[in-house]
Amino acid sequence: MIAAVLFSGGQDSSLSSLILSNYFDVELLTFSAGLSQNWETAKGVAAKLGLPHKTVFFDDGVIDAAAKIMIDDGFPNNGLNYLHKKALECVASMDRYDILADGTRRDDRSPRLDYSEVKSLEDRYNIVYVRPLAGFGRKVIDVLVNRFFVIREEEDISCRSDYEYEVRMFISDRYGKDTVDKIFPKRHLHSLVVDKNWSEKYDEEDKGCEDKTS
Amino acid sequence: MIAAVLFSGGQDSSLSSLILSNYFDVELLTFSAGLSQNWETAKGVAAKLGLPHKTVFFDDGVIDAAAKIMIDDGFPNNGLNYLHKKALECVASMDRYDILADGTRRDDRSPRLDYSEVKSLEDRYNIVYVRPLAGFGRKVIDVLVNRFFVIREEEDISCRSDYEYEVRMFISDRYGKDTVDKIFPKRHLHSLVVDKNWSEKYDEEDKGCEDKTS
Repeated sequence: MIAAVLFSGGQDSSLSSLILSNYFDVELLTFSAGLSQNWETAKGVAAKLGLPHKTVFFDDGVIDAAAKIMIDDGFPNNGLNYLHKKALECVASMDRYDILADGTRRDDRSPRLDYSEVKSLEDRYNIVYVRPLAGFGRKVIDVLVNRFFVIREEEDISCRSDYEYEVRMFISDRYGKDTVDKIFPKRHLHSLVVDKNWSEKYDEEDKGCEDKTS
Repeated sequence: MIAAVLFSGGQDSSLSSLILSNYFDVELLTFSAGLSQNWETAKGVAAKLGLPHKTVFFDDGVIDAAAKIMIDDGFPNNGLNYLHKKALECVASMDRYDILADGTRRDDRSPRLDYSEVKSLEDRYNIVYVRPLAGFGRKVIDVLVNRFFVIREEEDISCRSDYEYEVRMFISDRYGKDTVDKIFPKRHLHSLVVDKNWSEKYDEEDKGCEDKTS
């Protein structure tokens, strides 16, 4: 079974991918509006983790609609949620994946689908949506992240492959930088995975072991 | 870190334990009101899975209070939820475990703690509560269960180490069998794990591999 994981290169989507890769063939998918090359960060992290990666581009108008939601609300959550749902629906419609996953955690308020949206997504596309971190709070995720990854705390959002960077770019270009500053929090650290915390040696010996038992 | 998993010997708590055992030292705990030996099923499954197991007894009055809730409601959900919360609080207060877990799934309505109850449990006992299956629906759980376990569908509830058997016994003795029949559904199949679906040979070679890389 092939699982697609929405992947930003951050610690949560990396941990989610690692857990799923124990059970399924995992492919990492990063969404971009095509306004920047910020998906390259995620591509680099995917290569470090040794997992296949693809960049997928949002349809025209999606980033525009998300920006409008954020401007109407005066805060980003519902707009980010809209982008996340569009990304999930796009992957679900590809007809390549059995499982669709992300790195959303128990304590995340956004992006997050409510139960009826999850069931609707699964029924409409005949796909399985899983959230490997849905039952884990911050504390235990930090333990696992530090065990498996080398992390860098990053303030520069251009290093991030999540939705926020390009939607900020878009709003800044279309509505001005003041509008961006009104909607988004000023300072927000993002934990970026810079490498895995285990050696290639382990990978190779592990592989040898699998061959013996097969 | 040591994780305690509330364990019935059923497929969900077995899968939850298996997932957690990749990351933590896992101990399986089965609760009993001391009215029967039905915890022996879970003990047997734990032995098959090669994970340590303990039986823990509810305090006096707990099963009585759960029965009263069920009789007042006319259905079992809130009473089962009460027992589950009592079990979680009991394990949390043991001062032995860093992590407290169960096998509740995304689609389970009961037993289930709401978000404020989860935060309250974690804060009061300074423990981490995790639900490894919280982000997984029935379909993907079935795939993993069939990959990792040999399952038997079981109607006889005396073979089950969950809360229901003893609370039914208690209500039958105290309030009569008619009351049991009013509260509980007539026929309910339970998927019991009878063995693991991987060979000892794999375990041994895997261990050999770990030794080499350590």
